Amino acid sequence: MWQQYEIRLKPRRRGFHLVTDEIVAQLADLRDISVGMAHIFIQHTSASLTINENADPTVRVDFESVFNRLVKENEPYYEHTLEGSDDLPAHIKASLLGPSVTVPVSNGRLNLGTWQGIYLCEHRNQGGSRRLVVTLQGE
Amino acid sequence: MWQQYEIRLKPRRRGFHLVTDEIVAQLADLRDISVGMAHIFIQHTSASLTINENADPTVRVDFESVFNRLVKENEPYYEHTLEGSDDLPAHIKASLLGPSVTVPVSNGRLNLGTWQGIYLCEHRNQGGSRRLVVTLQGE
Amino acid sequence: MWQQYEIRLKPRRRGFHLVTDEIVAQLADLRDISVGMAHIFIQHTSASLTINENADPTVRVDFESVFNRLVKENEPYYEHTLEGSDDLPAHIKASLLGPSVTVPVSNGRLNLGTWQGIYLCEHRNQGGSRRLVVTLQGE
Repeated sequence: MWQQYEIRLKPRRRGFHLVTDEIVAQLADLRDISVGMAHIFIQHTSASLTINENADPTVRVDFESVFNRLVKENEPYYEHTLEGSDDLPAHIKASLLGPSVTVPVSNGRLNLGTWQGIYLCEHRNQGGSRRLVVTLQGE
Repeated sequence: MWQQYEIRLKPRRRGFHLVTDEIVAQLADLRDISVGMAHIFIQHTSASLTINENADPTVRVDFESVFNRLVKENEPYYEHTLEGSDDLPAHIKASLLGPSVTVPVSNGRLNLGTWQGIYLCEHRNQGGSRRLVVTLQGE
Repeated sequence: MWQQYEIRLKPRRRGFHLVTDEIVAQLADLRDISVGMAHIFIQHTSASLTINENADPTVRVDFESVFNRLVKENEPYYEHTLEGSDDLPAHIKASLLGPSVTVPVSNGRLNLGTWQGIYLCEHRNQGGSRRLVVTLQGE
């Protein structure tokens, strides 16, 4: 069984956001898969997806602080600067975290660990709504 | 053909550890797949998986040194500090490296390059045994 | 439907290189898949794959600059130094970016966003030709 969904996430401010429920709510066929995989892919180069702690919101605050220090804005050696000071750092952060997550599906649900959730990593100041392509397969 | 395995890795100290053989030994159906994929997923947010050099152990020592400098403990701006100084850095390292690796399967074995092995990246001082979900598919 | 391809990319100098077209040209069965996935895996530990902007080449120049500062050569604490000053940093960069990308396939083509392309990230000074294993599946 193959199913593919084009999903739009609602716009979010720059930072790290828990989006597991918003994604799962749009996967109508997930419950019918007893063993399989979900591939969740973001069609952008300045936002990314990752999996991390779903409980304490300060983890997501700290992610933003750490990534802003790891990849600073306005470095004098940047060449790609026309789209704003947040743009090139957004591209780098997007590749450090990656454009997709793949999650095992078991008994009709994403088989995440107890403390795991899917993050939308919005690296732009004004990213707008982000498009995902979710591919479900299994039996 | 779909097979899913829940595997427990034995506990390891903080650092980077070669676990290819420990994983493969538990995938009874791997030999029956001529073309396929293995998705190996860790159900934790402070440990991760990556693929890197399987030969010289100093590579894994240097990984630990580099990641400890890239994401330092006890930064004054961290907010998520209640679970110990190694906790927030562990979450960041886990997302930089990622919670899963996907490996092509060819002729009944993981089709890794000659020098590639799967690393468990244990980012906590006392991580304990780590759970994996391995999804095999193919024909 | 499963197809697996062993592809050799032509050698490139150290840096970030757009290789989407070189890969797609070698996937003869891609056009026959209406819904599926492409898993593109590099069999090396000092080069990697990522997805990022396919337009302005200065993005790729800046990637090289940023990653060279994020993971410096010749740090006094490195132990794995026998294969040259670019070797250990290449391993770290390879794991930060990862050995594979997985892309949804829709209507016979890679369903990348408008601005997305696949990068070969060549972290060695003399990396030579790099081997990929591409696994296509779908229906």
